[in-house]
Amino acid sequence: MADWQEISGGVTAPRGYRAAGIVAGLKPSGLPDLALIVSDVDAIAAGVFTTSQVRAACVDYCRQRLEAKASARAILCNAGQANAATGAQGWADALESAQLVGEALNIPPESVLLASTGVIGHRIKMEALRAGIPRVVAEASETGGDAAAKAICTTDLVTKSIALETHFGDRPVRVGGMCKGSGMIHPNMATMLAFVTCDAAVSPHLWHDMLRRAADRSFNQVTVDGDTSTNDSLIGLANGQSRTPAITEMGAEAEKLEAMLTAVCQHLAKAIARDGEGATCLLEVRVAGAKDDAAARQVARTIAGSSLLKSAIFGRDPNWGRIAAAAGRAGLLFDQENLRIQLGDFLLMENGQPLQFDRQAASEYMKKAAAGAYLKEDTVLISVSIGNGAGSGAAWGCDLSYDYVKINAEYTT
Amino acid sequence: MADWQEISGGVTAPRGYRAAGIVAGLKPSGLPDLALIVSDVDAIAAGVFTTSQVRAACVDYCRQRLEAKASARAILCNAGQANAATGAQGWADALESAQLVGEALNIPPESVLLASTGVIGHRIKMEALRAGIPRVVAEASETGGDAAAKAICTTDLVTKSIALETHFGDRPVRVGGMCKGSGMIHPNMATMLAFVTCDAAVSPHLWHDMLRRAADRSFNQVTVDGDTSTNDSLIGLANGQSRTPAITEMGAEAEKLEAMLTAVCQHLAKAIARDGEGATCLLEVRVAGAKDDAAARQVARTIAGSSLLKSAIFGRDPNWGRIAAAAGRAGLLFDQENLRIQLGDFLLMENGQPLQFDRQAASEYMKKAAAGAYLKEDTVLISVSIGNGAGSGAAWGCDLSYDYVKINAEYTT
Repeated sequence: MADWQEISGGVTAPRGYRAAGIVAGLKPSGLPDLALIVSDVDAIAAGVFTTSQVRAACVDYCRQRLEAKASARAILCNAGQANAATGAQGWADALESAQLVGEALNIPPESVLLASTGVIGHRIKMEALRAGIPRVVAEASETGGDAAAKAICTTDLVTKSIALETHFGDRPVRVGGMCKGSGMIHPNMATMLAFVTCDAAVSPHLWHDMLRRAADRSFNQVTVDGDTSTNDSLIGLANGQSRTPAITEMGAEAEKLEAMLTAVCQHLAKAIARDGEGATCLLEVRVAGAKDDAAARQVARTIAGSSLLKSAIFGRDPNWGRIAAAAGRAGLLFDQENLRIQLGDFLLMENGQPLQFDRQAASEYMKKAAAGAYLKEDTVLISVSIGNGAGSGAAWGCDLSYDYVKINAEYTT
Repeated sequence: MADWQEISGGVTAPRGYRAAGIVAGLKPSGLPDLALIVSDVDAIAAGVFTTSQVRAACVDYCRQRLEAKASARAILCNAGQANAATGAQGWADALESAQLVGEALNIPPESVLLASTGVIGHRIKMEALRAGIPRVVAEASETGGDAAAKAICTTDLVTKSIALETHFGDRPVRVGGMCKGSGMIHPNMATMLAFVTCDAAVSPHLWHDMLRRAADRSFNQVTVDGDTSTNDSLIGLANGQSRTPAITEMGAEAEKLEAMLTAVCQHLAKAIARDGEGATCLLEVRVAGAKDDAAARQVARTIAGSSLLKSAIFGRDPNWGRIAAAAGRAGLLFDQENLRIQLGDFLLMENGQPLQFDRQAASEYMKKAAAGAYLKEDTVLISVSIGNGAGSGAAWGCDLSYDYVKINAEYTT
């Protein structure tokens, strides 16, 4: 179906990108904590950022930069300190970081974008950062994608990256991506960060729209615990180094590129949900029959985010009532007599009324699906239809386990 | 401060009300499961109902009745079956229930309001109900408030009722109330039900507005797990049997009545939060400095509903970062530099930046507050200010414990 294939390399799979991840001494653990992505040439740049009123300095910084100029050469990401709720000094630290990267790369500081993840209320350890920047610049290479993906992690159990390749004519076009996030685990270790690189040539406005739509169909559809962060950022670069013709308006190639970009973002988003703290499986909720895609996504998100349903999934309980109740309170008008709910292949509800089904077998399905018996992934699939509309969409979450509470309650500040 | 005092009797404390609660055989447990409230005369009636698109027959029934006529004589409530997602047959059962109560009381069926709580997708056991209605009518008495409060419970650990009395001149005026709800515990055992009785004489429109505002300041500010139900209902009756002058417009007496009504609803709402499954304490979040009260309530609700914060409260962790992050994503614009956060008497954040504070002592405060050492209630108090506006409001929740997950995951359908 999809007209692309997975390749290795993450964010350095597309042409004209280098990356690195090093131990700069920002994290107490001594694990890698400073990542850099560099494009050989000016790349069209777009970003999607947290809507929280409590924001990190890097978020305000990137917004300002991207409003002034829709291009960039580098992204610096530190892990360990979020540089949120740090006031004027945090802002000054952000500016200095960009300045130092600019000097080391011999580019204007305005061409450097920033991201931070770590403890809220803590400034970046600037001494360690100052020493680290020249080193991470020196280490940046065309095979550095995996190292960079490691260095942006905080409480993540696994690194998350992917790259896809398609062809425009006979020329390869690639999109790579990496992200971090696993719900807000440790106190204030908040944050979903994602970076996408692409070597197609796209006009700035089109690239921004594509990235925004891809985010709406991926990261914005992930719910681990409903909490969003001060630092959430998705930044996308498109540097044209595939040497394919510039895409300046929607059409076959633009759609292909957007589909691939969306696939990259969805892969990363699912990886975040699967890495949710305490999660034992990925929950995928598909909604159809809504008036439009946005409405379908809203219903899917509400279902995937229900604590009650998440607890039921953990208990492998085919609880149609919780699915119906979550759909009903999603804030969208629909006729309850059109409600249809399916769990895997088990039809649980039709025309708004519960059906007889083999509960034991449905529970077995959940056990097997969570163990990866069907999709080669640990995915429990719920399909819901709310009417006859053409809108459809999906959301991803995870189950709610004892370990979620344990991880989040037992940390002592 | 408050110009009223607590009295006994619950919904039968106001004059001219009778109530009863009996074992009708609807619940498998054999516990009381059928409640009735009767007013001796036509009472002004108003209701606030779930906004879910998946609704029980009783909700649609009450809405229709109250749209046609803002008065009622009786409320019948069954526990055990929610009569939601039961289609045309569920609707017919609702109509028959009202008919039977009307016959037994010799009043028009249109004067009977209905509420159900229990398992979604299950019709009311009509044989048991038919036999039960004459009995519950026969048992209704002026001291039946407590029995009725017991019979509306499902998974509630405690019954919840209260009555307050004030004076208009030298005549007593009373408001009584009872409710059930403890989060959506057992699968599909969804539902917050509340019934308020009042013996003041109030015009229908005024009573409806008062009830709506009281609900906004109480039940709508309770968050146990973010899930709302197919059956949620608040019904208020005002029968004028205090023989005080009719209140037809806002003024000193109307304000006094509304304040007392709000106090009754807040008492009941807090009791629901405290009875949240697995809860070890009540969480009260007060927000000030918002542009208006509705904005303040929205921020308070978002904070009280954060799974991350609820986990921290369970761990007695004075986690200002989670409070700040929840405030930031509440969907309201504010300047983060105005954010101020207090836990009990501990100032954790001011001007948007974290302060030094004694973490050990703050954690001790939470332990003692949860144990009822301060307010004579098991309440952890969080106070947040987001600016200089005049709006303020509160919300209530509970902590998120291992037992929440256990209760919700280990039930097997």
